[in-house]
Amino acid sequence: MSLTTTSTVPFKVADLALAEAGRHQLRLAENEMPGLMALRAEFGESKPLAGARIAGSLHMTVQTAVLIETLVALGAQVRWASCNIFSTQDEAAAAVVVGPDGTVDAPAGVPVFAWKGETLDEYWWCTDRIFDWSAEAAEAGADWIGPNLILDDGGDATLLVHKGREFEAAGSVPEASDDTSHEFRVILDTLRTSLERTPDRWTRVAAELQGVTEETTTGVHRLYELHAAGELLFPAINVNDSVTKSKFDNKYGIRHSLPDGLNRATDVLMGGKVAFVCGYGDVGKGAAEALRGQGARVIVSEVDPICALQAAMDGYQVSRLESVIGEIDILVTGTGNKDVVRVEHLQGLKHLAIVANVGHFDNEIDMAGLESLPGAERVEIKPQVHEWRLPTGRSVLVLSEGRLMNLGNATGHPSFVMSNSFTNQVLAQIELWTRPAEYPVGVYVLPKHLDEKVARLHLDALGVELTELSPEQAAYIGVPVEGPYKVDHYRY
Amino acid sequence: MSLTTTSTVPFKVADLALAEAGRHQLRLAENEMPGLMALRAEFGESKPLAGARIAGSLHMTVQTAVLIETLVALGAQVRWASCNIFSTQDEAAAAVVVGPDGTVDAPAGVPVFAWKGETLDEYWWCTDRIFDWSAEAAEAGADWIGPNLILDDGGDATLLVHKGREFEAAGSVPEASDDTSHEFRVILDTLRTSLERTPDRWTRVAAELQGVTEETTTGVHRLYELHAAGELLFPAINVNDSVTKSKFDNKYGIRHSLPDGLNRATDVLMGGKVAFVCGYGDVGKGAAEALRGQGARVIVSEVDPICALQAAMDGYQVSRLESVIGEIDILVTGTGNKDVVRVEHLQGLKHLAIVANVGHFDNEIDMAGLESLPGAERVEIKPQVHEWRLPTGRSVLVLSEGRLMNLGNATGHPSFVMSNSFTNQVLAQIELWTRPAEYPVGVYVLPKHLDEKVARLHLDALGVELTELSPEQAAYIGVPVEGPYKVDHYRY
Amino acid sequence: MSLTTTSTVPFKVADLALAEAGRHQLRLAENEMPGLMALRAEFGESKPLAGARIAGSLHMTVQTAVLIETLVALGAQVRWASCNIFSTQDEAAAAVVVGPDGTVDAPAGVPVFAWKGETLDEYWWCTDRIFDWSAEAAEAGADWIGPNLILDDGGDATLLVHKGREFEAAGSVPEASDDTSHEFRVILDTLRTSLERTPDRWTRVAAELQGVTEETTTGVHRLYELHAAGELLFPAINVNDSVTKSKFDNKYGIRHSLPDGLNRATDVLMGGKVAFVCGYGDVGKGAAEALRGQGARVIVSEVDPICALQAAMDGYQVSRLESVIGEIDILVTGTGNKDVVRVEHLQGLKHLAIVANVGHFDNEIDMAGLESLPGAERVEIKPQVHEWRLPTGRSVLVLSEGRLMNLGNATGHPSFVMSNSFTNQVLAQIELWTRPAEYPVGVYVLPKHLDEKVARLHLDALGVELTELSPEQAAYIGVPVEGPYKVDHYRY
Amino acid sequence: MSLTTTSTVPFKVADLALAEAGRHQLRLAENEMPGLMALRAEFGESKPLAGARIAGSLHMTVQTAVLIETLVALGAQVRWASCNIFSTQDEAAAAVVVGPDGTVDAPAGVPVFAWKGETLDEYWWCTDRIFDWSAEAAEAGADWIGPNLILDDGGDATLLVHKGREFEAAGSVPEASDDTSHEFRVILDTLRTSLERTPDRWTRVAAELQGVTEETTTGVHRLYELHAAGELLFPAINVNDSVTKSKFDNKYGIRHSLPDGLNRATDVLMGGKVAFVCGYGDVGKGAAEALRGQGARVIVSEVDPICALQAAMDGYQVSRLESVIGEIDILVTGTGNKDVVRVEHLQGLKHLAIVANVGHFDNEIDMAGLESLPGAERVEIKPQVHEWRLPTGRSVLVLSEGRLMNLGNATGHPSFVMSNSFTNQVLAQIELWTRPAEYPVGVYVLPKHLDEKVARLHLDALGVELTELSPEQAAYIGVPVEGPYKVDHYRY
Repeated sequence: MSLTTTSTVPFKVADLALAEAGRHQLRLAENEMPGLMALRAEFGESKPLAGARIAGSLHMTVQTAVLIETLVALGAQVRWASCNIFSTQDEAAAAVVVGPDGTVDAPAGVPVFAWKGETLDEYWWCTDRIFDWSAEAAEAGADWIGPNLILDDGGDATLLVHKGREFEAAGSVPEASDDTSHEFRVILDTLRTSLERTPDRWTRVAAELQGVTEETTTGVHRLYELHAAGELLFPAINVNDSVTKSKFDNKYGIRHSLPDGLNRATDVLMGGKVAFVCGYGDVGKGAAEALRGQGARVIVSEVDPICALQAAMDGYQVSRLESVIGEIDILVTGTGNKDVVRVEHLQGLKHLAIVANVGHFDNEIDMAGLESLPGAERVEIKPQVHEWRLPTGRSVLVLSEGRLMNLGNATGHPSFVMSNSFTNQVLAQIELWTRPAEYPVGVYVLPKHLDEKVARLHLDALGVELTELSPEQAAYIGVPVEGPYKVDHYRY
Repeated sequence: MSLTTTSTVPFKVADLALAEAGRHQLRLAENEMPGLMALRAEFGESKPLAGARIAGSLHMTVQTAVLIETLVALGAQVRWASCNIFSTQDEAAAAVVVGPDGTVDAPAGVPVFAWKGETLDEYWWCTDRIFDWSAEAAEAGADWIGPNLILDDGGDATLLVHKGREFEAAGSVPEASDDTSHEFRVILDTLRTSLERTPDRWTRVAAELQGVTEETTTGVHRLYELHAAGELLFPAINVNDSVTKSKFDNKYGIRHSLPDGLNRATDVLMGGKVAFVCGYGDVGKGAAEALRGQGARVIVSEVDPICALQAAMDGYQVSRLESVIGEIDILVTGTGNKDVVRVEHLQGLKHLAIVANVGHFDNEIDMAGLESLPGAERVEIKPQVHEWRLPTGRSVLVLSEGRLMNLGNATGHPSFVMSNSFTNQVLAQIELWTRPAEYPVGVYVLPKHLDEKVARLHLDALGVELTELSPEQAAYIGVPVEGPYKVDHYRY
Repeated sequence: MSLTTTSTVPFKVADLALAEAGRHQLRLAENEMPGLMALRAEFGESKPLAGARIAGSLHMTVQTAVLIETLVALGAQVRWASCNIFSTQDEAAAAVVVGPDGTVDAPAGVPVFAWKGETLDEYWWCTDRIFDWSAEAAEAGADWIGPNLILDDGGDATLLVHKGREFEAAGSVPEASDDTSHEFRVILDTLRTSLERTPDRWTRVAAELQGVTEETTTGVHRLYELHAAGELLFPAINVNDSVTKSKFDNKYGIRHSLPDGLNRATDVLMGGKVAFVCGYGDVGKGAAEALRGQGARVIVSEVDPICALQAAMDGYQVSRLESVIGEIDILVTGTGNKDVVRVEHLQGLKHLAIVANVGHFDNEIDMAGLESLPGAERVEIKPQVHEWRLPTGRSVLVLSEGRLMNLGNATGHPSFVMSNSFTNQVLAQIELWTRPAEYPVGVYVLPKHLDEKVARLHLDALGVELTELSPEQAAYIGVPVEGPYKVDHYRY
Repeated sequence: MSLTTTSTVPFKVADLALAEAGRHQLRLAENEMPGLMALRAEFGESKPLAGARIAGSLHMTVQTAVLIETLVALGAQVRWASCNIFSTQDEAAAAVVVGPDGTVDAPAGVPVFAWKGETLDEYWWCTDRIFDWSAEAAEAGADWIGPNLILDDGGDATLLVHKGREFEAAGSVPEASDDTSHEFRVILDTLRTSLERTPDRWTRVAAELQGVTEETTTGVHRLYELHAAGELLFPAINVNDSVTKSKFDNKYGIRHSLPDGLNRATDVLMGGKVAFVCGYGDVGKGAAEALRGQGARVIVSEVDPICALQAAMDGYQVSRLESVIGEIDILVTGTGNKDVVRVEHLQGLKHLAIVANVGHFDNEIDMAGLESLPGAERVEIKPQVHEWRLPTGRSVLVLSEGRLMNLGNATGHPSFVMSNSFTNQVLAQIELWTRPAEYPVGVYVLPKHLDEKVARLHLDALGVELTELSPEQAAYIGVPVEGPYKVDHYRY
């Protein structure tokens, strides 16, 4: 792979020759993303995002490609990186760069910096690139241009701006200590280079930014913490907590992609097996339903007594992992916490049990502990599938090196689910861009009428007929005929 | 049935001789209500409700009997009426009056005013009785005693106090107009009699009241409206929106009692039948799951696009009622709205289709319209099951005269579900009684740590093992080790 | 209850005044029994059963009433007893006796000898009565008339004829020994009385009989044993093994009536509970599905490795009862074997665990052992629901005294399921009556085209559209266009 | 690809270098195939298949590789071809050729003639090769050696022998007529070449053969027809109708591999979609369960009223394909019949609806009709996934060119399921080889005790505890304690 510079705007992807294959997939995905296509129809003329320059950091998949092209159709300029080193679908990245009207020789699409299998250094280099709009500035004959919106997944792009500006204010980037993780060292190095080159780069970027829309629980958590600490630099819309995101993407997305990833990785029958799911939030609910739907016997663990009681009422055994460790064939973790699956658990599993993470970071499984376990040996069965031979004489199969296996072993959430999430993203970008006065610095969820709109845009494709309230009925329950229909604390 | 006065405190129930049978059922129910029993164990000594005088208006069932005796065990004095003319289980009412230590000849329990099959006049007379503590005053040698807490279901007790005080302030009870419903006429008559007898009765009662805890969506809705209008007279805790109530009682309760009611009423096989469920809120979700679990093909209707999309993602056909009316064998409505099932629907159903309401009021089905339909004839198959012969030549089977069939045709939600709801009720009563400073006039939900406590008290009975967070894990996700574990807007 | 003799033909039921209520239920049931109603339409004119005199021994329920009236509509004369002391629905029995055109004062229906709660002596007296056609003989002016067909459930009627003839051939009824069960002693007494009165009664009856159609696994098992021993006296059609019986009645019937019986008996929530199902045949499959559909966690036991593997593949834990005895809330047995639930199991269950038999005889649960357990005490909670207080200090709730709880605590299988079974019965009776040459002494299943016919008659009521083979397609798979479609060993 | 001849025995596979990757997968598969591994343990010493020379024609997958090496471990000599042009997993074929002890340079395994993507000419050449044991003869210094057993899937190997011998007896191979299918022309050509070269080849082969064990419904159907016509040349064991094959492979295999294939082919969300399943036999039951488990709304079609009624009782809508064609997102056919999905259906589907065959031959979907439809255009999205643009302006996505998509788009049934089927195969081969006297020419199913043995060998791996009958219980139901437990006509 080499830096491709055939365009006036630089980009870096695995292979532009994959663009045609990618375009086929985009075309099929568009049929599965009615929300985004409806926004193109509604806003393609009025172009509410004209003037918006969006720095996007989100898994560079086929679905994201449809998102990117929707943002462009609504008038935005866009640059893109992935938010995970393994999650890029190279043919999608290529198709986006080439664009619907470009060719491999004359790409006319969006600059993407992403490929499957980045190193951490490459990853943060890519993230840095989405904030460098010098080519666009040159093209526009401007002195400097920065992005004015971030579309983020997990908060890495937002982190880079905040840390960059913090270190610029301090005048230096701190040294790494012994405790500093490998990844944070890379971030420090990236920012140190930047500080040396342009001491006010991130300060300027931050000032220009009109806001961020954030996709995930983890990213949102960071934003609320930043805001609570008084350090948030620009308004943020929490897309994750739109009902049509958290209750759809997390639950129905995992229901689809967990068994898909297990199949592609291992071809192991789920029927009749004992599957253990750590966590019964939305992700765990989707995981458990999928496994049961394939005939597995599902056991769940939970720390929250309410979710634990839900799991029991849904018919699942609820146990501590260590209580049943020796019975487990398939171990799935989806908690968003760390050290959920520990080395002692891995050593207690059945021979060739499968270990899969659908939570967030790879530290849900103590991969560091496994890697340093004396006598443990790692055998690659195929990419993203490793047999770890343990000192016990037994092995476990670890998927995607402990990272998100629904992305690493499958192709992520399917288009229809992502259409819900991404329609929220686009509406959130429109909100921040067109109604800035409504959003002073802070963290917001989308108003319920937009959440309902997202759902509404996905009904026809499924053949759903919606019932309409009569004015009398609407008055009786005290809502407008056209919605929103529920109080804010309604749980769905 | 006649007024029973063997005690110094009057009461009125169907037949005290049913007390032994009722006591058997209370004993079994106690085994299924671990939350309430745990509160007896935790607070039986300290008696935090000592001094509390509770006017209770809630279906007088076996489960409520265990609630009442728990309130008493925690130190409260209690008087009780049912909140529905059909929902009283006469043996439970008898057992409560007799009390665990009393006898039929010397009842030593709680004054109850409730029997199955009250007229509306009798119903409001009973509700009035729970506010009359003159016997207790006499016993205590006091001039006057009023209740200081209401435990309400649907808001009838709260309504009576508010209307009573309003009319006392106005000096008169208004005349009914042509539009006044039959039930509101009865209320006006009840308050007119009261005003004539004691012109400041409700004003005194209202002043004494330290708050109300409300069980249902409908009652809560009334409270928010009252408060928004500035007319709420005392603080209210919204028990309905505790997760362990709304997501358990509504969903898992209906999942149990809908098929139970259908079976007891009709013995009709659900397998293979087309069942239509109006509304896919928590009640509709539970109804649809139960029917599918019995092999029915379930079609759902919704007005809210988010809930409609959930129904589709859960695999249900989502249609307007009129689109599929001729295919339906079992029609269930659980929306909380009015006129959901209209006369034109009833006329379009298959011959002998079953019509069942698990929402709230009988106006979910247009029973008034049916009753006035020329040529329609009502044939009683057995109590609470009526064949309505329609001018079309077809018949429909209407359960519980269009009222809540899970109460009218079955025995309501089972004990375990109600234990969750009622443990919330008791904790809410304790909050209002012991921490009044925390609750100025307004409508509150219980703090999340109490909601989690309710769940926690029900885990052992189901054999659930809860996983514990390590301090490091708790810090990582920013929660206390012992909870609460979720942000307030978490949807479960 | 007293012998009712207002008709020229004697009968004995609980109360003829229940007939109107029963007729209402028959009318509703007819709507749910499309197979039987279709036979009335098809054969009501031609009356293929003209001349047939049927002695029926089968649970005297509402559904059986529709069966009886179908047999009559097809030309048969019928007498009826129940095949279980608890299973009679008294209003159904009354309605059948009164008949559609009769009145309470002038019953014009079929002689029934059955009521809920017979003693064993009464039970065998009733069974004896269906073989006594002297009233019909008197009416017809004949010297003697016997039945020429048996419709049997469990084989009691068939047993009585075979034993009666055996003892008549031997010239005496043997004495009971110490090992003789109580029930068999009653049979011996019944036959002893008969032998004394009419020494050749059963010999004559047997000679007249043209065959029996048998409903159950147990009865069929007896028939195959009799035939293997060369003792079978007349041809038998095994209705049980029609696909539309065994795979429908057993599975879908239990799926319906098990939760119904649990609810009516105990009102205990199934959701979240641990339910154990002994046996994963058709009955066990239906039981497990019903319990899972209500949110229970289901554990299954099996002796047959194939059925055990099926249970595992369907997602159930498969364990020996003793391995998990202390976790069980609801224990269901449906094996058809004896001593499946033993006293040591009962003593190991959780406090107030429910014990329910949906297999066949009460000896699936060792009730005899429980009754003789020192220190065990039986407390009636309500009829058919008994708390057994055990020496362990814990109690169990035994339903229907260990007999079939779907009959004792609920109302048996619902009409639609029974319509399948009973349509097979009627077709089998027609076969034996109209084509005797095809059925020399032996045990037969119905030919597949009749089995398919039974299914076909039930499709319209469920809105099922059947696809038709083209002649080319039929030829391609080598079947007639109109069926039968499968080889005999096909398993469905 | 070129003919590889590094061994003394010729073989032909795609690439021997894939052997290491294949061996990894074999190792994992062995862990999932406890039945086969148990047979190796039981019979590895005694080698009951010593002397057997097996010509195998069955999908050359990883699972088949474990089967082949099990046959070898039991003493057999084996040659192998695939039974489908697309189903070979090239790494599995390579691993088998190399063998566990060989190397790429010195393969020491079994001669395989199979690769993914054969032409029909190549396919029948491969099938021919498994009957040519001249290399083995040369090695053994024998004049001629033929196979003495066939292990067949679909009957192609058996067909070749029968047709070959038929034409040798006739002295010539008939000419193809206009109606002759392309495939049968290839067969005729293959046999014509053979006849020219060795006029008595197939006659000798047929004489040597001691029997065939057949895997599939289709193959079994051919065998019964041959036998009925008096043309069957050697005994056959019908493995397909072992319960542990037909009720496991067909149902649970498809439940696994249908969604797997849909995912790998299209990544389309199944949740919320309308899926139509043609046929509700075992394959259709598994397909419908899988789709429902993923949240699809499933509609079923059937020609057999019994299966149609089962589908309805399981909660599915049962409709004719043409009645709902315009609502369908995913169309699955699994009937075993031809022309089930016709061109008029394809033209009526929703835009980009998916069309998938899990039945048997590609003529379930009228691919020939589609290919000759004027105006239809085929666009390859990726291998085995084609968009057919139709004259209607809509497209459909046809998977695996209308052939079995669970093999073409996924990796076939998973190891655990195949372990059941293949354990039956091995036991059947042992029966034919070691007990020829028991099997005169005819078609047999395995005795039930062997069927139960297959199940028994798979229980431990799933943690299943089997319950044991006491001698008293076994006697009570009239079976041996150790089984078999069911009558032959039991349907499971």
